[in-house]
Amino acid sequence: MIVQLGQIIDALGGELVGGLRDQEITRISPLETADAASISFLSNPRYATQMAASKAACVIVAPAMRDAAVMRGACIVVANPYVYFARLTQFWRAKKQGLKPSGIHSTAVVDATAVVGESAYIGPQCVVGAGARIGAGTVLSSRVTVADECEIGERCLLHPGVVIGADGFGFASDGASWIKIEQLGRVRIGNDVEIGANTCIDRGALDDTIIEDGVKIDNLVQIAHNVHIGAHSVIAGNVGIAGSARLGRNCSIGGAANILGHLTIADGTSISPTSMVTRSIHQPGLYTGIFPLQTNEQWEKNAASFKQLHVLRERIKKLEKALEAQKSNNGNS
Amino acid sequence: MIVQLGQIIDALGGELVGGLRDQEITRISPLETADAASISFLSNPRYATQMAASKAACVIVAPAMRDAAVMRGACIVVANPYVYFARLTQFWRAKKQGLKPSGIHSTAVVDATAVVGESAYIGPQCVVGAGARIGAGTVLSSRVTVADECEIGERCLLHPGVVIGADGFGFASDGASWIKIEQLGRVRIGNDVEIGANTCIDRGALDDTIIEDGVKIDNLVQIAHNVHIGAHSVIAGNVGIAGSARLGRNCSIGGAANILGHLTIADGTSISPTSMVTRSIHQPGLYTGIFPLQTNEQWEKNAASFKQLHVLRERIKKLEKALEAQKSNNGNS
Amino acid sequence: MIVQLGQIIDALGGELVGGLRDQEITRISPLETADAASISFLSNPRYATQMAASKAACVIVAPAMRDAAVMRGACIVVANPYVYFARLTQFWRAKKQGLKPSGIHSTAVVDATAVVGESAYIGPQCVVGAGARIGAGTVLSSRVTVADECEIGERCLLHPGVVIGADGFGFASDGASWIKIEQLGRVRIGNDVEIGANTCIDRGALDDTIIEDGVKIDNLVQIAHNVHIGAHSVIAGNVGIAGSARLGRNCSIGGAANILGHLTIADGTSISPTSMVTRSIHQPGLYTGIFPLQTNEQWEKNAASFKQLHVLRERIKKLEKALEAQKSNNGNS
Repeated sequence: MIVQLGQIIDALGGELVGGLRDQEITRISPLETADAASISFLSNPRYATQMAASKAACVIVAPAMRDAAVMRGACIVVANPYVYFARLTQFWRAKKQGLKPSGIHSTAVVDATAVVGESAYIGPQCVVGAGARIGAGTVLSSRVTVADECEIGERCLLHPGVVIGADGFGFASDGASWIKIEQLGRVRIGNDVEIGANTCIDRGALDDTIIEDGVKIDNLVQIAHNVHIGAHSVIAGNVGIAGSARLGRNCSIGGAANILGHLTIADGTSISPTSMVTRSIHQPGLYTGIFPLQTNEQWEKNAASFKQLHVLRERIKKLEKALEAQKSNNGNS
Repeated sequence: MIVQLGQIIDALGGELVGGLRDQEITRISPLETADAASISFLSNPRYATQMAASKAACVIVAPAMRDAAVMRGACIVVANPYVYFARLTQFWRAKKQGLKPSGIHSTAVVDATAVVGESAYIGPQCVVGAGARIGAGTVLSSRVTVADECEIGERCLLHPGVVIGADGFGFASDGASWIKIEQLGRVRIGNDVEIGANTCIDRGALDDTIIEDGVKIDNLVQIAHNVHIGAHSVIAGNVGIAGSARLGRNCSIGGAANILGHLTIADGTSISPTSMVTRSIHQPGLYTGIFPLQTNEQWEKNAASFKQLHVLRERIKKLEKALEAQKSNNGNS
Repeated sequence: MIVQLGQIIDALGGELVGGLRDQEITRISPLETADAASISFLSNPRYATQMAASKAACVIVAPAMRDAAVMRGACIVVANPYVYFARLTQFWRAKKQGLKPSGIHSTAVVDATAVVGESAYIGPQCVVGAGARIGAGTVLSSRVTVADECEIGERCLLHPGVVIGADGFGFASDGASWIKIEQLGRVRIGNDVEIGANTCIDRGALDDTIIEDGVKIDNLVQIAHNVHIGAHSVIAGNVGIAGSARLGRNCSIGGAANILGHLTIADGTSISPTSMVTRSIHQPGLYTGIFPLQTNEQWEKNAASFKQLHVLRERIKKLEKALEAQKSNNGNS
């Protein structure tokens, strides 16, 4: 595919500086691997030296980097280079693929009572249950299941293997065995939500599991019954969110982090990857609970000491008292 | 759907107190969100004030809560309200859905040599391999794979994306590369087992992987080759159980916990979520290994100290000796 | 199935000692569960007493164990018993199953522009996208997705539910919501790679995600965009590798371990299960970060102390100074 800089400017805006509208571009590349037919971008001034050394035909930069960029060659000056880059990838893909697919693939199994919105796409081997609703412009890639009665909003993207609306994990013990609690709620997903490959979102037990607008969820994430995720929150791969937890808006949950059930997490909270959230968080901020990595030899020593940590604490307290006692003694002597 | 209280009592038993048999119910709700056409339940006396404030038409309670419940309005008195609630959800679902589906969906691929029990259901896009056995009344939801020779018992429920009988992870190194060890064992699953969406249970290397009766497994769980899980154990989402581990009966494994290979876990053991089990457990009880969550700032300080933990321990020992020496000195002086 | 020892020797080599070529074998078994028609193996001298007690018809052993093995009965003496055992499982499977399947299953959806190599097999319900390439002899088990333009090498094995080439997780924030960065790269996988059930490997953002020859990946693993995994590395179940991380050759990543984005891991590095890698590793070796498991009671005490760890450190420092001061005082007095 060949695109001219002028076409990019015409489609996405920005000011072309030090370059020609008919310059031909064949790829979008990171600064380091860019060649003379690449367009690249600088979103962080930290990488200014990489820009200087880049072979890119054109670099997308912020106004503050204009002078540095011009010294190197052509640039497009825009307010937010990273957002411009994102829109450029969308422009690129649309140009390359042509029209987005729509309709229902012949191998998909869509219940007659399901409602599929205008220009939505249900890909190969998908299964859409009775009474489910798929919003306009939403894409189900291959092998997605949306179970009975679940609702997906508009312009969503569900990647292969996603399961929406499997039963939540609920059982009552009668002392000898587990009695299933039928999961009578649904999953309701807002607009502009993206859900990664093989991610599972369970239906609610009585009320619904809710994912608000603009939420982005990565691969292999487990979202249990009756979870509520606030708008524009971002959840990285392998995360687990237990039943009835309530995440605020604009939260960011790092990869493989876990959140216990029935907790409330404040708007704007960030959780570091692999951290375990065991209590509600009322104050936004960055929270972390990562066990430090060490050589196995060091780890063995420290892990053994850890098991004695509260004993060590007692020994310190004892030492402090003994020293205090000695001081008094010395003072008295 | 409308159900009368009398119909519920007739189907499930219990004593209706302070209410009319022809009271109409349209939903099962938690106490807080219940309305005048809801039936709700109180399984824990802790929530008695929520019950008092609930708008539910009727509340399921234990005999001890009878008086408190009657003060509020109609109630059904039963020995175990939570089990009664579970059975009510089953009654509700059956009433709503009518007959459970059975038979083989037209898009499922079932090998001619597989044996599918009476009234079992093989859903859309499922794949059942040669010589596999699916017990009577068992349901494979959409997109489930049961590989060659694997056996599933009766009344099981396998959610979308489940993979039973993929190869266990076994290779021998010849120094340069990995030689595959073909996995010649099977998976054998008992009766009344539920398996969550996208969960994987690998076939054994030589002998079989075994899941006993009544086991409940949540979503995205990985069970490796030759694992043996005792009856009525419960395994939450994202758990990993490594090869040849042997769990007892009535165990409870919290979400995202992991169990190393070849370990033995005693009957009735509970593991907290995200904990890592590195040794066999012979004494039932609750075991935990969760790294405490802190603000990132606190965590950075503590994590740095942790790396010095065994050094700190040595410093405490030294201090104790020095103080002891001083005491003797002072005594001598 | 019945195989004679002579057939095994003829196919795989090795020296038959103390046994007859026409001895009939019906199963391959571990030493403990072997019966009089089993062939078994001893790969580690530690298990010599298990060998002595085994009822196996024949045991595969190394030259050093020849005498001990002969005292018990028939044995096959080979340089590397574990590799021989692996090849025996392959021999066994081939004999039992006959020809490996090849071709494209009637329910698979393979784009007309995809290229499928000679003797490759595309199983039931698989989806292979436009321009994808599947190498000769590669097997896609049931329900595998290989998205547009992705390339799989020769003799690979992809288990059920694998997703190759879903979008990497990339968004730019415009302050209010997340703008999708279209993922324009591919996934390129080398030869002799095995990928476990429901594992996901995302396509690159601009450049490609790369898995080199001979890599073995277990179930439910998440490999993010632009990761590069060196040849013959082994990745256990539930692992997460974040974007642009670069693993060397011959690495070994334990189950449920995680690796942050943009890190570099040296050739031959091993990471213990559930450990979190937060910085690049330049020195090969075994690295660990496992939180020690304890009874919940012990854990509660130690976790509370942990939150004070840097405070404890300060208190030790203070004690050391105080003691030092006393010593000087005492010296001066």
